[in-house]
Amino acid sequence: MKNRGVLAVISGFSGAGKGTLMKALLERYPNYALSVSCTTRSPREGEVNGREYYFVSGEEFEEMIAADQLIEYACYCGRYYGTPRSYVERQMEEGKDVLLEIEIQGALQIKKKFPDTVLIFILPPDAAELKRRLTGRGTETEEVIAARLSRAAEESEEAWKYDYLLVNDDLEECTEALHHLIESQHYRAGEQKERMRQIQEDLRAYRKN
Amino acid sequence: MKNRGVLAVISGFSGAGKGTLMKALLERYPNYALSVSCTTRSPREGEVNGREYYFVSGEEFEEMIAADQLIEYACYCGRYYGTPRSYVERQMEEGKDVLLEIEIQGALQIKKKFPDTVLIFILPPDAAELKRRLTGRGTETEEVIAARLSRAAEESEEAWKYDYLLVNDDLEECTEALHHLIESQHYRAGEQKERMRQIQEDLRAYRKN
Repeated sequence: MKNRGVLAVISGFSGAGKGTLMKALLERYPNYALSVSCTTRSPREGEVNGREYYFVSGEEFEEMIAADQLIEYACYCGRYYGTPRSYVERQMEEGKDVLLEIEIQGALQIKKKFPDTVLIFILPPDAAELKRRLTGRGTETEEVIAARLSRAAEESEEAWKYDYLLVNDDLEECTEALHHLIESQHYRAGEQKERMRQIQEDLRAYRKN
Repeated sequence: MKNRGVLAVISGFSGAGKGTLMKALLERYPNYALSVSCTTRSPREGEVNGREYYFVSGEEFEEMIAADQLIEYACYCGRYYGTPRSYVERQMEEGKDVLLEIEIQGALQIKKKFPDTVLIFILPPDAAELKRRLTGRGTETEEVIAARLSRAAEESEEAWKYDYLLVNDDLEECTEALHHLIESQHYRAGEQKERMRQIQEDLRAYRKN
């Protein structure tokens, strides 16, 4: 009897290292599937349709909303972003743990609809380290860095609503911790219902004999 | 900043292998402390005061109840069993994860008083395997085995109230799973409060500058 997969939503400040973590998990363990979002924004250079995002038109996106084909969606800076339902459900049915890297608003929508979803927020060890990482990339202007830090301050007001806050200090350690955290969700009482029911039934039968 | 330890209560059917699991965890990882219960029953052959139990008189036990020195207690077969508060609290303060192997009623009492406690129920892979293990010991009469199976059937009605149900099929795998499950509790949002508050404060300060 193959267990149904877990849906793990990963969020975190820009610079917390979410992308690197997802990549490490997917490379290292065969039980993960990465959900790719849809967006109405244009592809940036180097982005591939179906890898970073599915790039769709505004009309297509609205048709997906109308047909209830998205498990969450949100609008940022005038562009839609959403998570296609079919991929997530199919992978979970097949026993894969689905990783979904999205923003806080979408994450909270999903938790409300599917309370079994595990919400994980990735934190830097401290604010100074976050600033160092954003600065260290060397590709952003001071204004962009200031905007990201400001956004992080706002996001930190909502991170409380997540189930777990995981510190990404050392990539290796954090990847393992994230993996073990997601694995542990399979032992939640609700996930073991079928096995427990079977044991109970068999124990009762012994008692009758 | 050393994090406070987690209190993990482990229960399970007789024959599920709880004792062996606890022993493996304690031998393998330095971050665990095993809480030893008090009881008013007499020591059995080979039992050492302070190792299996603290053996106390009925009067002493009632004084501990009156002085609120027990975080839970229950009466089985006319004998008291209880968990001394001071050891558990001291170990948790020192950052140790405290393991407590007790019965369901005591476990539910503790969860009510201390909702951060994680309740873990150890299951056999199936009822037939449980029967095999109980029979395989070769030390119990058929009546005793029947009584244990009957008790397991009763306990299975309450195991639902636990946070996690962990199957002990392979000792090695189950020990690792249990360890990772307890480790993961440290990432719960409530446990990361102090760090999160600090990051938030620092991010706000950046915004002001």
